[in-house]
Amino acid sequence: MIIILKNNAAREKVDALAAKLRGEGFTLHYSEGKHTTIIGLIGDTYKLDPEDIAAYDIVEGVRKVSEPYKKANRKFHPEDTRVTVGKATFGEGFFQVIAGPCSVESEEQIVEVAEAVKKSGATLLRGGAFKPRTSPYSFQGLEGEGLRLLLAAKRQTGLPIVTEIMDLSTLGMFDDVDVIQVGARNMQNFSLLKELGKTGKPILLKRGMSSTIEEWLMSAEYIMSGGNERVILCERGIRTFETAVRNTLDIVAVPVLKRLSHLPVIIDPSHATGQPWLVEPISKAAVAIGADGLIIEVHNNPEKALCDGAQSLTPAEFDGIMGKIRHYAAFEGREFGIASGASIGAAL
Amino acid sequence: MIIILKNNAAREKVDALAAKLRGEGFTLHYSEGKHTTIIGLIGDTYKLDPEDIAAYDIVEGVRKVSEPYKKANRKFHPEDTRVTVGKATFGEGFFQVIAGPCSVESEEQIVEVAEAVKKSGATLLRGGAFKPRTSPYSFQGLEGEGLRLLLAAKRQTGLPIVTEIMDLSTLGMFDDVDVIQVGARNMQNFSLLKELGKTGKPILLKRGMSSTIEEWLMSAEYIMSGGNERVILCERGIRTFETAVRNTLDIVAVPVLKRLSHLPVIIDPSHATGQPWLVEPISKAAVAIGADGLIIEVHNNPEKALCDGAQSLTPAEFDGIMGKIRHYAAFEGREFGIASGASIGAAL
Amino acid sequence: MIIILKNNAAREKVDALAAKLRGEGFTLHYSEGKHTTIIGLIGDTYKLDPEDIAAYDIVEGVRKVSEPYKKANRKFHPEDTRVTVGKATFGEGFFQVIAGPCSVESEEQIVEVAEAVKKSGATLLRGGAFKPRTSPYSFQGLEGEGLRLLLAAKRQTGLPIVTEIMDLSTLGMFDDVDVIQVGARNMQNFSLLKELGKTGKPILLKRGMSSTIEEWLMSAEYIMSGGNERVILCERGIRTFETAVRNTLDIVAVPVLKRLSHLPVIIDPSHATGQPWLVEPISKAAVAIGADGLIIEVHNNPEKALCDGAQSLTPAEFDGIMGKIRHYAAFEGREFGIASGASIGAAL
Amino acid sequence: MIIILKNNAAREKVDALAAKLRGEGFTLHYSEGKHTTIIGLIGDTYKLDPEDIAAYDIVEGVRKVSEPYKKANRKFHPEDTRVTVGKATFGEGFFQVIAGPCSVESEEQIVEVAEAVKKSGATLLRGGAFKPRTSPYSFQGLEGEGLRLLLAAKRQTGLPIVTEIMDLSTLGMFDDVDVIQVGARNMQNFSLLKELGKTGKPILLKRGMSSTIEEWLMSAEYIMSGGNERVILCERGIRTFETAVRNTLDIVAVPVLKRLSHLPVIIDPSHATGQPWLVEPISKAAVAIGADGLIIEVHNNPEKALCDGAQSLTPAEFDGIMGKIRHYAAFEGREFGIASGASIGAAL
Repeated sequence: MIIILKNNAAREKVDALAAKLRGEGFTLHYSEGKHTTIIGLIGDTYKLDPEDIAAYDIVEGVRKVSEPYKKANRKFHPEDTRVTVGKATFGEGFFQVIAGPCSVESEEQIVEVAEAVKKSGATLLRGGAFKPRTSPYSFQGLEGEGLRLLLAAKRQTGLPIVTEIMDLSTLGMFDDVDVIQVGARNMQNFSLLKELGKTGKPILLKRGMSSTIEEWLMSAEYIMSGGNERVILCERGIRTFETAVRNTLDIVAVPVLKRLSHLPVIIDPSHATGQPWLVEPISKAAVAIGADGLIIEVHNNPEKALCDGAQSLTPAEFDGIMGKIRHYAAFEGREFGIASGASIGAAL
Repeated sequence: MIIILKNNAAREKVDALAAKLRGEGFTLHYSEGKHTTIIGLIGDTYKLDPEDIAAYDIVEGVRKVSEPYKKANRKFHPEDTRVTVGKATFGEGFFQVIAGPCSVESEEQIVEVAEAVKKSGATLLRGGAFKPRTSPYSFQGLEGEGLRLLLAAKRQTGLPIVTEIMDLSTLGMFDDVDVIQVGARNMQNFSLLKELGKTGKPILLKRGMSSTIEEWLMSAEYIMSGGNERVILCERGIRTFETAVRNTLDIVAVPVLKRLSHLPVIIDPSHATGQPWLVEPISKAAVAIGADGLIIEVHNNPEKALCDGAQSLTPAEFDGIMGKIRHYAAFEGREFGIASGASIGAAL
Repeated sequence: MIIILKNNAAREKVDALAAKLRGEGFTLHYSEGKHTTIIGLIGDTYKLDPEDIAAYDIVEGVRKVSEPYKKANRKFHPEDTRVTVGKATFGEGFFQVIAGPCSVESEEQIVEVAEAVKKSGATLLRGGAFKPRTSPYSFQGLEGEGLRLLLAAKRQTGLPIVTEIMDLSTLGMFDDVDVIQVGARNMQNFSLLKELGKTGKPILLKRGMSSTIEEWLMSAEYIMSGGNERVILCERGIRTFETAVRNTLDIVAVPVLKRLSHLPVIIDPSHATGQPWLVEPISKAAVAIGADGLIIEVHNNPEKALCDGAQSLTPAEFDGIMGKIRHYAAFEGREFGIASGASIGAAL
Repeated sequence: MIIILKNNAAREKVDALAAKLRGEGFTLHYSEGKHTTIIGLIGDTYKLDPEDIAAYDIVEGVRKVSEPYKKANRKFHPEDTRVTVGKATFGEGFFQVIAGPCSVESEEQIVEVAEAVKKSGATLLRGGAFKPRTSPYSFQGLEGEGLRLLLAAKRQTGLPIVTEIMDLSTLGMFDDVDVIQVGARNMQNFSLLKELGKTGKPILLKRGMSSTIEEWLMSAEYIMSGGNERVILCERGIRTFETAVRNTLDIVAVPVLKRLSHLPVIIDPSHATGQPWLVEPISKAAVAIGADGLIIEVHNNPEKALCDGAQSLTPAEFDGIMGKIRHYAAFEGREFGIASGASIGAAL
């Protein structure tokens, strides 16, 4: 961390700040310029909040040199992390597709979709039970009943399930859920992240709509610093000035994250754009740029979906796209889905 | 709501959609153009999710004509809403200043700050007990103990208190809190909003860092549709490309909200920029543009603050600014603080 | 176009507006709702500025239904446009790579780079003579002398050249340039666009840093409405809140543009991120998502480059990446570079 | 400037870079941390492009410590600059209102508006002759004839005129124009800025739609480094995700600019929002926050305006607002318009 002092900083105040920082175990290096003096701070600066230093009235500004996260940082953990869910591995060398409807609506619906996506090669089933909706007048999900139906689909297909938690108070209901999803709006719900850090469950951490990559990794750090290192990151589009599609997919975040962190990264082409015809080109680009998987919305009847039908593919459309993703994954040397020889149904 | 049909939309599919919409009580008007046919939908469209309509494969696009919120909408509630907390009124004709430290640190600190800001004319005391911090390694607030100290300061000064709730599970601890604050990161924590809608307490609803004004009013609608109409909106800066200061204060949101809604609106100049020297010019502009109040960070020792000291004023600096705000409020015909003759201390 | 009237709109004013619009050849459809009356406008609305209608005091708002561009619109030109430069074709079925240094520095440098990139499979040479630099104290390009050196490199290698025009007054110097580039900062320099519309030269139109896709197509429309339909669009990253890399590449713009327009689209991975290690993953994703080409910065000595060396690849790094792009292009059924049998050198 | 070295940076490469920098006159300070070594660079770093340093393969990153502009920097020019146009002074202690139509349409129109706004207290007349329009099918301004009519209005009212230049090639036509406006889309038209730096005319430099404050000051630096220090900055709203109004007015840019620079700053409330009912509240806030003036669109018949009528006030509305601005300016101790005793008409 670098501290830029004001021109007229009083010597005794600078000394006091320096003494405080040395007391906290940091080593200090001074550089005096014509107009500015800077102090280089050496030590475990990730524990230091730049705002605390900026509060001193002799300080003009603060510049970070190293990342504020440690557990999620590739510098301290050079090997890729692989997160395994049942027989499916997220991380280097593998490629997984999670699929299913935006929200669970009935047992018939969720089982039908689960069977279809499994047949096409998906290795996990997604489905919303608790739904974050912008309007209080929109369908809010089947909640507990939705979880029950997801578990029924899991029993019938062998597919592990991924579903979103919206509030800490419902955590007890997620015991049999395989992967707990934290949605974009909850990416900085720190109370929730802390509790998830105490579970041993894989967490699918979606990027907040306007979160920087650094903030996203800090949210992963919340979970990991609690003891749970099974975090899968999911890019789902950020908010920009562009209105042609719902969000702007920051696909370059994938290689950037791969360099900064060791965690697996997947992409959500359905929420990124809200347009089903864009799922195929985005999915191919996702494999090409190095993502570890996809999460795709599939509904057996998009026109009758109770939420976000507009962005869902039919099972037949999904099947067509999976053929292409499979080819791309092979081209990139990725094992597609579960290892050959294994079968998901047998996992039960 | 306007539905734009695709060029090649099959007649029977259009008829099916039309029948469905009529069945839901809407009246339909058709306009056939050379390249496009549109359907105008008349009725209570705020209950209709545009995405549901966009899911139909005959639909090219959907355009909203009216607002998706009703309780928060000035069209259905032309009179200004006034929210009263103790003797302080938020809303037309009044101007309130809420002040206090970013976080509660000790009884001595919070009482000292409370007495100082009261003397300068603040009518409510703010102070964080539960703190949303980007890093798990930063101070997270005194939590329950922080609430206890705030209540002690309330007893000693008579100032009603405003403090942030971070998670539903702690709601029971807020019984004696006068105004519950929902922070920017929780603006779309819908589970929390729903529960707050069941309380009778004033809610200070901060704008999400990258939330549109419409989304913000939809979050107010969540609270109001639950039965609690005592919502105060608080603009605190949005995230943009500009990095000169922490956020970009969207000050024009004040008159825009006043036209769209009947709810009171205040401004947080401290969080908007993170720079104490900007509090004075922003505060004056806030009065001039029609805000109903301010929430300002004041700390008796910013350099030793446990969080965000960098953006705090000292009590003396705050006092200087209050003199100017008072003049501006008078100029705009606003009653500053509590009505003359009343005294906060006497409120106990 | 849809006109939403104010609730209290006086009948005679509505009639006056309606008469004016009918006089301009539009057909009008009315829909009267409980709270709102809307008018659907049928005809060539792309010539109508929504702001002109919004100026009427009886108008609450205006919603566009169709696109404001015509020449660039796929609806009126369903076939893909192919732009041919020498033996290289931009458009469906082909994939071109343009490469070269950020700025031309010497004859030795530009010829050496040109020969290297040609050997690796690039079909056009890029190089800046006039450089838009944020600081007046930075190197501004060799200007006329730079153009002369580019032409020398063209003579020696047979590669057609692409270079940026910064100001109308220099247009006369571009007679022997093969493709004129309009940079991001000039995307809405309408005086320049109009003049380029009178030339017969291919124009590489970069997207403005914060331009919407619609504004970008409107800038293409400026050129095309002047008579020059040889426009190649180039996505180079947009400005967002994210600071991990220089810009946020809006890669989804490629399939969105392909649906809205018939023009070829290429991607600039060098300027999008400013980081040479990201060129490879982005280039692969660009092919996968359907781009028609790439423009990549290559410098024979990035550390000594006079501008933007930080984002340049060495010729050896470029050659390694080209091998992968070639495979991806084949996988997507794209003819890579010039048609087999043809040779660029022979073009002279 | 601070250079952060890569962990594995080879000693001889570091020495080579250090030697080069010392050769350019910089002094270097080293700080070696556990994971990172940084070099502090002391000297005239504003002439150094951070990208040039980042190009070295031993460099991990670069952090700027001081501003890259000098002429526009308050550090090197602590006194406020005042720009005088006729009898009107822009800068500390004064407040000017520029008013007039978006575009000049006829002599009758421009003279009528000029007389009206002069009567209400405006001290300069604005009016567009060359109009930057997003669509090639929109009215592009009367061009040379528009300039002629503006000069006629100047002769009849004595009001100095402000009008926009769109292209260098027309500079010769601006001899009798008092203030040359550079529009948002041309803020980084560096060829134009350089030429304007050679004139002695006051330049009204509008902020680019998505330009940072630093980039804006760098554009001022282009003009000033050419010898023309008569620059007036104009904030007109930036592009963000919010769509409730046209742009997001960054009003806090005013005090931020006042701290960073010595140049006068005015606000354009008309273009910032595109909504005439917002001009009054924004204008009051502009005075309160410390702006040196306003530029406001006024049209004698907004419904018949040939461009942007939607954002124009009528002369009567403008007159009402001017009364309030006058009071606010007095409250802030600003001389409103020209000094008392002087009269604009007498200026001829």
